[in-house]
Amino acid sequence: MINILSTLQPDFAQKFERIVEARRETDNDVAGQVTDILQTVKLRGDAALAEFTHRFDGYTLAEDADWSIPPEACEQAYKDLPGDLRDALDLAAARIRSYHEAQLPENRDYVDAAGVRLGAIWRAVDAAGLYVPGGRAAYPSSLLMNAIPARVAGVERIAIVTPTPKGVSNPLVLAAAHIAGVDEIWRVGGAQAVGALAYGTQRIRPVDVITGPGNAWVAEAKRQLYGVVGIDMVAGPSEILVIADGSNDPDWIAADLLSQAEHDPTSQSILITDDAVFARQVEDCIDIQISQLSTGRTARASWDAHGVMIVVNDLDAEAPALANRLAAEHVELAVDNPESLMHKIRHAGSIFLGRMTPEAVGDYVAGPNHVLPTGRRARFSSGLSVLDFMKRTSFLGLDQTSFNAIGPAAATLAHAEGLPAHAKSVELRIK
Amino acid sequence: MINILSTLQPDFAQKFERIVEARRETDNDVAGQVTDILQTVKLRGDAALAEFTHRFDGYTLAEDADWSIPPEACEQAYKDLPGDLRDALDLAAARIRSYHEAQLPENRDYVDAAGVRLGAIWRAVDAAGLYVPGGRAAYPSSLLMNAIPARVAGVERIAIVTPTPKGVSNPLVLAAAHIAGVDEIWRVGGAQAVGALAYGTQRIRPVDVITGPGNAWVAEAKRQLYGVVGIDMVAGPSEILVIADGSNDPDWIAADLLSQAEHDPTSQSILITDDAVFARQVEDCIDIQISQLSTGRTARASWDAHGVMIVVNDLDAEAPALANRLAAEHVELAVDNPESLMHKIRHAGSIFLGRMTPEAVGDYVAGPNHVLPTGRRARFSSGLSVLDFMKRTSFLGLDQTSFNAIGPAAATLAHAEGLPAHAKSVELRIK
Repeated sequence: MINILSTLQPDFAQKFERIVEARRETDNDVAGQVTDILQTVKLRGDAALAEFTHRFDGYTLAEDADWSIPPEACEQAYKDLPGDLRDALDLAAARIRSYHEAQLPENRDYVDAAGVRLGAIWRAVDAAGLYVPGGRAAYPSSLLMNAIPARVAGVERIAIVTPTPKGVSNPLVLAAAHIAGVDEIWRVGGAQAVGALAYGTQRIRPVDVITGPGNAWVAEAKRQLYGVVGIDMVAGPSEILVIADGSNDPDWIAADLLSQAEHDPTSQSILITDDAVFARQVEDCIDIQISQLSTGRTARASWDAHGVMIVVNDLDAEAPALANRLAAEHVELAVDNPESLMHKIRHAGSIFLGRMTPEAVGDYVAGPNHVLPTGRRARFSSGLSVLDFMKRTSFLGLDQTSFNAIGPAAATLAHAEGLPAHAKSVELRIK
Repeated sequence: MINILSTLQPDFAQKFERIVEARRETDNDVAGQVTDILQTVKLRGDAALAEFTHRFDGYTLAEDADWSIPPEACEQAYKDLPGDLRDALDLAAARIRSYHEAQLPENRDYVDAAGVRLGAIWRAVDAAGLYVPGGRAAYPSSLLMNAIPARVAGVERIAIVTPTPKGVSNPLVLAAAHIAGVDEIWRVGGAQAVGALAYGTQRIRPVDVITGPGNAWVAEAKRQLYGVVGIDMVAGPSEILVIADGSNDPDWIAADLLSQAEHDPTSQSILITDDAVFARQVEDCIDIQISQLSTGRTARASWDAHGVMIVVNDLDAEAPALANRLAAEHVELAVDNPESLMHKIRHAGSIFLGRMTPEAVGDYVAGPNHVLPTGRRARFSSGLSVLDFMKRTSFLGLDQTSFNAIGPAAATLAHAEGLPAHAKSVELRIK
């Protein structure tokens, strides 16, 4: 039974700060190894890829056909899916596409009062690379959440890298690649695959942006290549904050908390409620559900190590400040009228409104992206969107009249900053 | 006299690729030193800041009054400016503000065909930290370009860190801080100042986003803290690409090329023209102007090492492909009708339209941000904007009807991915 905190406890503030500051991320001393792998791939290209893949994945890249999975294999995997699963993936894809289409930014092009033409054009990057993990964490939903925004953004070339240990690939992932319209699938993984996407090799052309989840080596490779290419946010362990009054079914809330806990022992599930009796009921339900889950061992480890329950006097008055300090990836508002709480919560990756909106529905089929900032990064970063696959070019245009109006000020500032060529390029044009 | 390339040369493609791939960035082996400094600041806070500031800046932080520059000093610096300089800074600030206000993103909140409420809310980060270099590179225009977007985004607290070697601060920078409405100015610089902003110290509260230019130590500190806080893009040496026909005044184009070259010996200026005679005229003008510039030595070093002139047959047919490969920070289109070229240039930080729009007018007073992606990063990243100081929270809300419509697909996918608690949290709610 875990300790239930109460905001009435005299040492609550300290206990809560300890929870906020706790680092769940495991230090993996992989930076040096990753640097070596990236350098090797940069210098030796495909030969290095083949060596690493043989060593780490037990898979031999010899013939051309060994290197990639053709679109036809993806289409076949899609056709071979059970009907309900195919329909579910199709529904998810359609809804993700529709949500992200509504996200496309607008260009601007206007002439201001001084007669200066100003604006900005958004354009897609030329090529995106997506990392798709092999093995247990190979989620088709993740592939859709990464590839569809890239496609909606207008990216012309989408290349996947994914390890196929001993040559085995995941048919669900291939089917998702078919639905998303991925252009290339390369059978390489780890830091070496990320390096190949960034630097390019004989076979794999370089990309401009790399996204997608991966292990510590993959995350570190992306971090080191930030600036060579664009990357999505560095991700840490996942978390959910459920804010629930006592009128919820405790079994529902228990399942919601466990849907985070079952991901990984480092995941965190937090309940804030104004009903201490309800909190105990939820915990009882958690114990029962864990015993029935095939993922029970992971869920138990996560809940025991990182699960938190906080009882407050008044949800509306107290929960938002706690939520903003936690800046959680997922925030469920399991109350009748979530509107007021929603507007007070400034820092959250995604907010799930009302009793009928469990996180899991957002993970798969609602439409918004499930790649969200973790580890309090919702304070400053956003979930994956079409903007991660686009960039903006500003533009400006002056004529003699508008130049005469604002040019002299530019020359004055250039002189003051000690940049005479800047000043001259302006002064030559003033008439 | 520099070598003028022509697209007619048989080895042009190779020569051009060498220019594209050339790294102008100097390797500074500062990573280890920066790691140590950041750790020390994290552990020892203000005491560490005082020691580093004494050692690196020759300035003693003892009394409270030594640590920061009060708003009154900034206001006084503003009042003490010569009238034309004050007016120029005011004009720049007003135009930057207006351009960035037009950039504010719109929230979304809608109900889709399945009855699912979907949307996203943009919010400012709570606090932004801006690095302002001391000494030669202390540009008031840079302060405006960083602080005003943060203020327009709605950031409540803006803290500047800036070294004041031997206690000397730059009155132009203080005046700009007054205009931009900066809240705090801390007299610390280097990696230690960036660490203080990220981790917080006894005196300096932590911020959520850190932007602003700096030397190799500052850039490396930001890179290492990426993820602890948000940062703007890692910046490299600056560059300009001028695309100009033979009808330009060669003196104007020479000044434009030199306005980049005078920044730093690692800066790069490139001219693409369809008129070989004009190219030679521009080069003659460059030689004359350099001899008259107080920044001539820097401009000479940059032009000799990195200056490039390329003669093409047909600007409209050939220049866009070259420009896209270069993905330059600044692209001037010095032709009568720049519209067609503009739409073919996919990768550029900012585009300057027509003969009357030199880069320098954009550096100071046009309105768009002058913090732009360098070193070919315009392929995947954008200039600084209000978005760098904001983040987006997605939200979703279902009722029983919409849940029954899409919930079953979520449960199917959860089972397929081996996540039974996800499935249960959905299945419990299906009626």
